[in-house]
Amino acid sequence: MKLATSLAIAAAACALAAPASAQSFQKPEDAIKYRKSVMTLQAAHFGPLGAMASGRAPFDAQAAARHADVLAVVAGLGSTGFIPGSDKGDTRAKPEIWSEQAKFKGYGDKLQAEAQKLAAAAKTGNLDNLKAAFGPAAATCKACHDDFRRD
Amino acid sequence: MKLATSLAIAAAACALAAPASAQSFQKPEDAIKYRKSVMTLQAAHFGPLGAMASGRAPFDAQAAARHADVLAVVAGLGSTGFIPGSDKGDTRAKPEIWSEQAKFKGYGDKLQAEAQKLAAAAKTGNLDNLKAAFGPAAATCKACHDDFRRD
Repeated sequence: MKLATSLAIAAAACALAAPASAQSFQKPEDAIKYRKSVMTLQAAHFGPLGAMASGRAPFDAQAAARHADVLAVVAGLGSTGFIPGSDKGDTRAKPEIWSEQAKFKGYGDKLQAEAQKLAAAAKTGNLDNLKAAFGPAAATCKACHDDFRRD
Repeated sequence: MKLATSLAIAAAACALAAPASAQSFQKPEDAIKYRKSVMTLQAAHFGPLGAMASGRAPFDAQAAARHADVLAVVAGLGSTGFIPGSDKGDTRAKPEIWSEQAKFKGYGDKLQAEAQKLAAAAKTGNLDNLKAAFGPAAATCKACHDDFRRD
């Protein structure tokens, strides 16, 4: 088998139905699946930070830093999945996302900024710093969900 | 409303049903959903790199570096989702993942290493470097899927 062919097969193993770029999805369903995956990762890594910040889980500075570092990257991805036409389908996204794009983008930018602050706070290894940074980040999630996500 | 209460509500907006840590999921379904989300992000960011490496898309050094940086983080996450009991359900994971854990972990470690090399190669802004690093990374995806994922 030619190297090019085997490479193409190998690449397909990683990138089946992958968009040409994270900003241009082949189908609205792909964009919806992508942004939901981002939300799932955000929840999975934000959750433990919330548990530590609220005292529901013991503070683990190393784990907190790891979760916050993942969040700092993932928090910048979700907004790329709200492409035109992806308001229909298996999604709770409100049409206002597309009719109030500046406001929606503002939330996305704020989430990224808060996630960066959270990562910096987690790196200090100080629980009080984590608590202080967690609140505004959590409030940003809630505000956007309240405005732009169907119950 | 007490600050603690409002914070808890806000936190829930980000972390509904989130595991106590990315390594300890409350239900096998949560672990399956998490690892599938990781795979979705990997495909979405690996795909554009493959398109550039194979010439199917024009080389965009900035986009390549961005995608590779995301991969370098996300590639380290998926393996945490294969918890005991998550071999059943909506998954193509083969039971060998749990019966051949050392081999499976080896693939996970190799994927992380290849993703780091890919990110470093992408940062050089040189397409030949990207091509050279893409092949081994893609081959790692395929080898693991061949051994541990049902068709």
